[in-house]
Amino acid sequence: MTETLTTQLARFASSDIRPTGLARRMVRLSALDWLACGIAGTDEPVSQILHAQALSEAGATQAHLFGGQKVPARMAALVNGTTSHALDYDDTHFAHIGHPSVAVFSAGFAVGEKYGKSLPQVLEAALVGMEISIRVGLWLGRSHYQTGYHQTATAGAFGATAAAGRLLGLTVAQMQMALGLCATRAAGLKAQFGTMGKPYNAGLAATAGVEVVELIAAGFEANGEALDSALGFGATHHGEGNTELALQELGQSWLFESISHKFHACCHGLHAALEAARSLDLAAPEIASLKVRTHPRWMTVCNQIAPETGLGAKFSYRTVLAMLALGKDTARLETYSDALCRDPRLAALRELIHVEADDGLSETEADISLVRRDGRRLEARHDLQAPTEYEVREARLLSKAEALLGAERVTELWSLLQSEAAVSDLAEYF
Amino acid sequence: MTETLTTQLARFASSDIRPTGLARRMVRLSALDWLACGIAGTDEPVSQILHAQALSEAGATQAHLFGGQKVPARMAALVNGTTSHALDYDDTHFAHIGHPSVAVFSAGFAVGEKYGKSLPQVLEAALVGMEISIRVGLWLGRSHYQTGYHQTATAGAFGATAAAGRLLGLTVAQMQMALGLCATRAAGLKAQFGTMGKPYNAGLAATAGVEVVELIAAGFEANGEALDSALGFGATHHGEGNTELALQELGQSWLFESISHKFHACCHGLHAALEAARSLDLAAPEIASLKVRTHPRWMTVCNQIAPETGLGAKFSYRTVLAMLALGKDTARLETYSDALCRDPRLAALRELIHVEADDGLSETEADISLVRRDGRRLEARHDLQAPTEYEVREARLLSKAEALLGAERVTELWSLLQSEAAVSDLAEYF
Repeated sequence: MTETLTTQLARFASSDIRPTGLARRMVRLSALDWLACGIAGTDEPVSQILHAQALSEAGATQAHLFGGQKVPARMAALVNGTTSHALDYDDTHFAHIGHPSVAVFSAGFAVGEKYGKSLPQVLEAALVGMEISIRVGLWLGRSHYQTGYHQTATAGAFGATAAAGRLLGLTVAQMQMALGLCATRAAGLKAQFGTMGKPYNAGLAATAGVEVVELIAAGFEANGEALDSALGFGATHHGEGNTELALQELGQSWLFESISHKFHACCHGLHAALEAARSLDLAAPEIASLKVRTHPRWMTVCNQIAPETGLGAKFSYRTVLAMLALGKDTARLETYSDALCRDPRLAALRELIHVEADDGLSETEADISLVRRDGRRLEARHDLQAPTEYEVREARLLSKAEALLGAERVTELWSLLQSEAAVSDLAEYF
Repeated sequence: MTETLTTQLARFASSDIRPTGLARRMVRLSALDWLACGIAGTDEPVSQILHAQALSEAGATQAHLFGGQKVPARMAALVNGTTSHALDYDDTHFAHIGHPSVAVFSAGFAVGEKYGKSLPQVLEAALVGMEISIRVGLWLGRSHYQTGYHQTATAGAFGATAAAGRLLGLTVAQMQMALGLCATRAAGLKAQFGTMGKPYNAGLAATAGVEVVELIAAGFEANGEALDSALGFGATHHGEGNTELALQELGQSWLFESISHKFHACCHGLHAALEAARSLDLAAPEIASLKVRTHPRWMTVCNQIAPETGLGAKFSYRTVLAMLALGKDTARLETYSDALCRDPRLAALRELIHVEADDGLSETEADISLVRRDGRRLEARHDLQAPTEYEVREARLLSKAEALLGAERVTELWSLLQSEAAVSDLAEYF
């Protein structure tokens, strides 16, 4: 008899793994990215509300919150999952369209700190959790996402469960029950996009993983087939049930390797254009005109013509390209200021930039045509899904982290992430 | 423009209400039932696991757990929701098929105790929460339930939100956002039936209500249309969208009035037969033969022929009817013992009892034909949905509570529930 999806995922999640060197390096990179987003996210109103709620309940000091203080691991996962997604600046996996780090690391670091695990143990557990998120997300498929489910929350909860369960040393049978119990708990709607509910969804996924794993470890008995049985999560949540796709080369190849990182603190729809423009070495004085072509869906999302606020700038091709041409660092949160939007140099540049839809482009592509004052014409195209060499990615991610946290802290964090240190050694940076 | 479902539910939940006398009496009755089930449920393994987890996290002493000790209200709701559903002995509303008390009271009492509310305040808030649960459940409809969602958990979460939100004095706009935030959090699958996951689902609903209400009260901003918008909970969760049905006479008539209580500590499929048999005043020595007719669906659920364990007895027409004929109290947990199953008198009686399916009966009906040793034939039929006079119901519920808690405690609890006492005055009974 063929084993069920859940059994195979549970066996993978509980057993020895042999990740590629790239997978190991990429998960460390995503850990740095998650830490940067989480630490930088603590000033967001939603983070403050969750942080205050956690402190008002307090309890056992098991794991650190972004923003400081220790609380029960279950609560830390909720708060840190929310906080690290609050800036919407964390990583994305396009195969299932979800942000795996915010759920998986928030669960893994909280459980890791509570149980005195080392950073390599947490990174390995998180790698497994990421892979489970992505594969459950693929199994659920586009119908699940299009119906209205937020994969970061739904698929993410299973990833968080796998990561936490691995750290607690669950057996295969326990891991399967934990995934099954997660199926009755995993939730999250895209209807909350544009509100504080979006980052909260990520926190829900993280805390679900911690909670169900702790319960199963304590002897709780659940239906271990509740993910993929007839009345299970997939069937009830408009899943496509792409089992073959989900299990393809499980344990051999690592879908997580193709994780994508954000290098600009603005709407994802602007990133391909910014990357294309970067390759042209855009400089304000040389620009006669600049034409951007992008996928039609972005026109209603992030084509504000002349926003007057920093928040508006995050949804404006003309503004972010003008910022880039003025030499501003689009990775920094501070760049997106009301003051810069009012800068006459920026306003003048915006007038030279034109945006149009092109349905020949995919959602991750953009095309830039530059006419320089000296008459030269330059073209560039970028696809966010195009592979980037690891070294290039690392350099850019370190630079992004520095923009968020300052060079000194990043050097220290990056060094710790390559050490055998305990999770608790990271605590002072939270 | 017609107001949305959520707006109308939020207005109802936040505004002055004028419940009927019956609705007020019934909610007090359900409160006693919930307390009896919760207090009696503390020995169940699932309750013990959740209770221990709560104590291991501890934190602010805001609300009592069934089984004793105070923890944060959010955690108390999780544990008490699970514990009060652990025996599966709590109330049921057949219009949407859900157990409203376990989610709504578990949230309402926890929040009520935390904020120093009185019992009348909690009972009123719970009545509103029950009504919201039932009406959201009707709006979601049979398709939601048949697809695999556990209405106790899903519809229940909205009821818990309404009850908690009313106690915190949320405005209509806040209540609407709380219901919208709940939509991204509400979850629970029937796939967990028969495992500890079933009562846990009830706990999840209760804690969801407390959590989202506390967040909204603290300034969290959510999409208040996430219940009934195009990408909302109904559309994503196979809801039928029976808006008219859900809103019919909202605020005028109280669907909660037709709540059903369990008077036997066994599978609900056996109750109609037990009630019919009770009306015949069944006595072992007089029985020549007894025929039970029941809806076909129960034949695979609760027709064990000669179970040898107390647990098996809970799923056996022949056994529970033999117990009744022997004068045993089927309301008591202790009645369902392995020893009684092995009693030769019970075994002999079982041989006289025959069960058959009859698709002319509804799921809530059963028919009993008794042939007595003196040759007399008696017939009785019972429908669990048939109305019971309030006084009859109250007497039976007090007797059930006494079977679970003893007469003295029930007298005290029942008197408190009719007083102006604070929620915390109930604490010593938890």
